[in-house]
Amino acid sequence: MKISIIGDGGWGTTIALLLYKKGYNITQWGVFPDYVKFLQRKRENPRFLPGIKIPKKIRLTSNMDEAIEDARLVVLAAPSQHMRVVLKEIRACRPKAQTGFISVSKGIENKSLMRMSEVVHQVLGPVQLAVLSGPTISYEVVRRMPTTVVAASHNKDFSKLVQKVFFTDRFRVYTSEDVAGVELGGSLKNVIAISAGMVDGMGFEANTKAGLLARGLAEITRLGMKMGARQHTFYGISGLGDLVTTCISEHGRNRWFGEQIGRGKKAKIVLKKTDMVVEGFATSKSAYELSKKHKVEMPIVRQVHSVLHKNKNPKKAMHELMTRKPKAE
Amino acid sequence: MKISIIGDGGWGTTIALLLYKKGYNITQWGVFPDYVKFLQRKRENPRFLPGIKIPKKIRLTSNMDEAIEDARLVVLAAPSQHMRVVLKEIRACRPKAQTGFISVSKGIENKSLMRMSEVVHQVLGPVQLAVLSGPTISYEVVRRMPTTVVAASHNKDFSKLVQKVFFTDRFRVYTSEDVAGVELGGSLKNVIAISAGMVDGMGFEANTKAGLLARGLAEITRLGMKMGARQHTFYGISGLGDLVTTCISEHGRNRWFGEQIGRGKKAKIVLKKTDMVVEGFATSKSAYELSKKHKVEMPIVRQVHSVLHKNKNPKKAMHELMTRKPKAE
Repeated sequence: MKISIIGDGGWGTTIALLLYKKGYNITQWGVFPDYVKFLQRKRENPRFLPGIKIPKKIRLTSNMDEAIEDARLVVLAAPSQHMRVVLKEIRACRPKAQTGFISVSKGIENKSLMRMSEVVHQVLGPVQLAVLSGPTISYEVVRRMPTTVVAASHNKDFSKLVQKVFFTDRFRVYTSEDVAGVELGGSLKNVIAISAGMVDGMGFEANTKAGLLARGLAEITRLGMKMGARQHTFYGISGLGDLVTTCISEHGRNRWFGEQIGRGKKAKIVLKKTDMVVEGFATSKSAYELSKKHKVEMPIVRQVHSVLHKNKNPKKAMHELMTRKPKAE
Repeated sequence: MKISIIGDGGWGTTIALLLYKKGYNITQWGVFPDYVKFLQRKRENPRFLPGIKIPKKIRLTSNMDEAIEDARLVVLAAPSQHMRVVLKEIRACRPKAQTGFISVSKGIENKSLMRMSEVVHQVLGPVQLAVLSGPTISYEVVRRMPTTVVAASHNKDFSKLVQKVFFTDRFRVYTSEDVAGVELGGSLKNVIAISAGMVDGMGFEANTKAGLLARGLAEITRLGMKMGARQHTFYGISGLGDLVTTCISEHGRNRWFGEQIGRGKKAKIVLKKTDMVVEGFATSKSAYELSKKHKVEMPIVRQVHSVLHKNKNPKKAMHELMTRKPKAE
């Protein structure tokens, strides 16, 4: 079975390796021909997954026709704000009707406020589609740390196929039908992770971070339910689980980004200095707009948004969160 | 207002300091006269809260009559398996009818499978009672790290009083009426924290821990709801929040205990070497019994119980958790 991975970042590369080891025929696509040529020669992805060897049998290409042709499954691992452009390129290659798509990107498009699966359907029409999301730090998955994820699809047979394709003794896949819940949890948690990083940067510790996490999950859940997602999903692996990983791991890039902000650095300067896409930066805008649109109180999202986009002092933001008037939980 | 703290462990001492700084008249009681005398002289609690000064105006005593007399509030901070004995001693001192009690102990009595508030009412009758629980690593609270907690009582006026008494700009108190939920979350999370520590001890990382945490909270919640608690509470500060802190903090003693077990040490030997009460050790027994009694599937609790009390190999337990048959979340 041919499976194509669209995107050559850390997570795309990790998935390519995982599925390759399970015996699938893997093609990985990257947008920049020069970087793809470099990967073909170097057989390592130093920018996003340093130190991990990429076997020669994983085909690397920047030609979308080559990637899409005869693929039974296409894994979409492009950054969320570039997903639409990439999908248009896929559409131009006329994928076969039986091609199934799996989105693994975590974000909400700024302009349309759409989830990735909505963007996929808008561009590609009613294709077979699942989203795969969970606490999956790439650097841990490639080293076979036990990991759990959720594969969600409105099509039960398809989520079961995805479960079967990805499942290993160290990569446990649960199925779900709550596509919106899985996508919103995976996207919105990055905003809370930035606040958790800010707490680290200011020198606060576990009590503070845990309180933020609990209150953050509560506000994400409130918004998600208004948008048609199931409450249960936010408290599972793709919600709470992913939130926890991103907030505690050294390798969590949204947490790391927040830490720099908490130390007093400016968002734009920090972003310029990294190759990584900090999804939470764009998502904080979408989340803030969604909270206004759906009239949901989201104090943490509001403060993160003010710090990142309105130059608010992070210490002031934290102080305001802690000193809101006493209330019931 | 006189407030008495029953217990001279780390958390009892932290609460004494917190309330003292708010201007209350504080008496702290300890069970061992010799240790209390030592504290009176040393004005520091080196065993449980090293490096933190205890002001002279905090009265230290091992005489329960002295502690109870004229106290408006009595904070119960004894280890859960000793709570009943301590309460009988309090009863013998005939506290006044207007005395209110606040339980801050996290555990479930092994023999009766009762929560602390149930034990309090059984021994003291229908007294004013609240429970206070949340992500509260003592060593962080004494250093004024921003902390959030929940005060739960069936009596709304009393939980509001507790909120007012404890609230500071760095110690944010929410109220709740779900006494069972707050107590069960705070108690059962210690068993999950032991499993999280085992993961650390085996060298696994954030993905693994986050997955365990999410699945652990799900099984705790299932049990809690069968026992009459509200789902919402488990996803709040006293459930999820406390679970996260205990699982990530270096100072979380249940996590620390699990880490030793994950490294291959035997439970009894580890327990002998520490002065700390590892509440999760006893709670794992109660939780296991409760899961059988209420017919709730709790795979993580079952594995922790087998490792701690039936000598099961922790690596085998972890492997079994990861390789259960694929399912829906």
